[in-house]
Amino acid sequence: INSKLPHVSTTIFTVMSDLAREHGAINLSQGFPSFSTDDHLKSLIKNAITNDHNQYAPMQGLLSIRVSLSNLIHNCYGAIYRPDDEICITAGATQAIFTAIQAIVHPGDEVIYFTPAYDCYEPAIQLAGGIPVPISMDVQNFAIDWDLVKQTISNKTVAIIINTPHNPSGTVMSKEDMLCLQKLVVDHGLICISDEVYEHIVFDDNKHMSAASFEGLKERSFIIGSFGKTYHITGWKTGYCVASKVLMKEFLKVHQYLVFCVNHPIQVALAEYLKTPKHYLELGAFYQRKRDLFLSLLKDSMFKFSPAQGSYFQLLDYSSITNEHDVSFAKRLTIENKIASIPISVFMSNDNTKKLRFCFAKKDDELIQAANILKAL
Amino acid sequence: INSKLPHVSTTIFTVMSDLAREHGAINLSQGFPSFSTDDHLKSLIKNAITNDHNQYAPMQGLLSIRVSLSNLIHNCYGAIYRPDDEICITAGATQAIFTAIQAIVHPGDEVIYFTPAYDCYEPAIQLAGGIPVPISMDVQNFAIDWDLVKQTISNKTVAIIINTPHNPSGTVMSKEDMLCLQKLVVDHGLICISDEVYEHIVFDDNKHMSAASFEGLKERSFIIGSFGKTYHITGWKTGYCVASKVLMKEFLKVHQYLVFCVNHPIQVALAEYLKTPKHYLELGAFYQRKRDLFLSLLKDSMFKFSPAQGSYFQLLDYSSITNEHDVSFAKRLTIENKIASIPISVFMSNDNTKKLRFCFAKKDDELIQAANILKAL
Ligand SMILES: CSCCC(=O)C(=O)O
Ligand SMILES: CSCCC(=O)C(=O)O
Repeated sequence: INSKLPHVSTTIFTVMSDLAREHGAINLSQGFPSFSTDDHLKSLIKNAITNDHNQYAPMQGLLSIRVSLSNLIHNCYGAIYRPDDEICITAGATQAIFTAIQAIVHPGDEVIYFTPAYDCYEPAIQLAGGIPVPISMDVQNFAIDWDLVKQTISNKTVAIIINTPHNPSGTVMSKEDMLCLQKLVVDHGLICISDEVYEHIVFDDNKHMSAASFEGLKERSFIIGSFGKTYHITGWKTGYCVASKVLMKEFLKVHQYLVFCVNHPIQVALAEYLKTPKHYLELGAFYQRKRDLFLSLLKDSMFKFSPAQGSYFQLLDYSSITNEHDVSFAKRLTIENKIASIPISVFMSNDNTKKLRFCFAKKDDELIQAANILKAL
Repeated sequence: INSKLPHVSTTIFTVMSDLAREHGAINLSQGFPSFSTDDHLKSLIKNAITNDHNQYAPMQGLLSIRVSLSNLIHNCYGAIYRPDDEICITAGATQAIFTAIQAIVHPGDEVIYFTPAYDCYEPAIQLAGGIPVPISMDVQNFAIDWDLVKQTISNKTVAIIINTPHNPSGTVMSKEDMLCLQKLVVDHGLICISDEVYEHIVFDDNKHMSAASFEGLKERSFIIGSFGKTYHITGWKTGYCVASKVLMKEFLKVHQYLVFCVNHPIQVALAEYLKTPKHYLELGAFYQRKRDLFLSLLKDSMFKFSPAQGSYFQLLDYSSITNEHDVSFAKRLTIENKIASIPISVFMSNDNTKKLRFCFAKKDDELIQAANILKAL
């Protein structure tokens, strides 16, 4: 058999979570909360199941959740997305990203994205027959060189994928970044796929800059979000895509034949739950406390770091401890020290970063225990 | 924007379900049950949610549900699929079909399927850069002309999609059909995508012939099933794909980046529920009673029919009533007579069939009311 993705093997998330399980390690690798989901949200979905919302939902999602989401986005970013033709509920953000790429990338089209990058962009582009064009961020502060982006745009470029807050680095794009992006997208007639799954998890004085807030860019963007990341339900696999009507029309053509529709009782529950702003407005403070707890214990350790600006990931630079390759060091930490993390070289071509990614969406006692072990290294 | 699917519009299922809602019609169009899901299954998923199975499941699905499914398939067809590398749980059968096609169809490859056909095959093939090669079944008894299939196979053919029990006709493939398929697939080194979502819904003396039961064919097949269809939970959007290790390896590469994984609490619930054979063993009898109820009331009507052999769909030939085009007649029946159905011309190029598809996965009183209205035409 002639593989369409010959270079792909098991994703690092599966590799590290499996290794953590096998060795009884604290799992700070894969990005999911280890604490409970809100009992109120649990009771909302249980009611939806009891009340027989157990057959197909409408293809685009229930109108009620699209209305709730439209209001939420308006509250957060001042942007208007019409529930009827500019919003689609998806089986997680990954499905939304894959669908957006399938909808607009034709064979031979180039798609720019920035590395280190979440690992689904490249194979999704390849499966659409497109050409992945990764641009390296500088690995000290993960800034984007917009002049380089401009030079890289060719007459084959159709889209730029951005991700803010950024996984794995925890940086957030500035207003200046967004203005550069806006200009390039508008001037060159490109489409932006904006992966904003950590939109509500931003710290200190940082502010999430959504592509929805920038005129011209908004009209040319698919914006992708995750209910899993925001409401501590990664295992319910529900996300969304919002886009201008013209883009959404193409998105829906693919979505309709890729999954047809999405879990119904979850949508009934979330339609209600999304109406309470405190759940998403307080999320940054909730995770900032966890970040601070973790980092306060590491401040006299051998690890170097700058505190994450957003997302629930913290990079730690271990170059003062060892010269070992990050994949090897991450595995050894898991097996010998019982702390699982993600080596970030797998998200980029630069193999020499000496940085590991730790997820702090974990119970306080796990974070304390993990930090104490790391401190002793 | 240059559409990748210029010919696609809203699927007939959405069109007819929306029209049914708008006009207060009994909805026998879209294929989903109008009755309740088993309370025991509901309580299993509610427990899984209470017990915090709310974060990512493993990429391929929980091992427990893969083991339950492997046993179920072995019970039904005598075939062995290894839970560890030959089974994947999917976000519905549609996602499984799309993923299988993406995994094996390269640009320029031809894929044969039989019309009338479920409407997701063609766009999925097109998005993979493949060439859809529909072969018409004869519209009286929906038989496949295997000599014609043999003549149609070219050196670009990579796959054949079959669907048994068949939607929309309700026919099932015979052992002779499967032997012809087996020979062609093996002789020409093809891959079979076998859509068996109605596998447990078979009537009278008919028996479901799974591609899993035919040596040589099994090794070259992706077999796709639906927990939604079998357990009255179409809105939970959970299905599966089983295939030999070599094929499953390619399937998983795509699945991993298309959805990553599938709803976790559903899998915990189904892993347990699948262990009780009566749920699937009694499903044929359950739906046969509904088919018989519906048809007994129509036997002196103007409609002509042969009873469905499987699936939960019944075709009715209305040529004695009117010469109207089926799309127009289906809409008029919905608006004026308050019965929604599916016109089958949308699944094929033959526009002159004068047959509508009625879903009988509905409450008895709805079936009685609908049949009485149809009888009066
Ligand atoms: C889809 S599994 C990975 C979860 C995640 O977003 C991450 O760990 O980066
Ligand atoms: C995915 S909506 C259509 C459901 C179905 O299988 C049918 O009605 O044929």
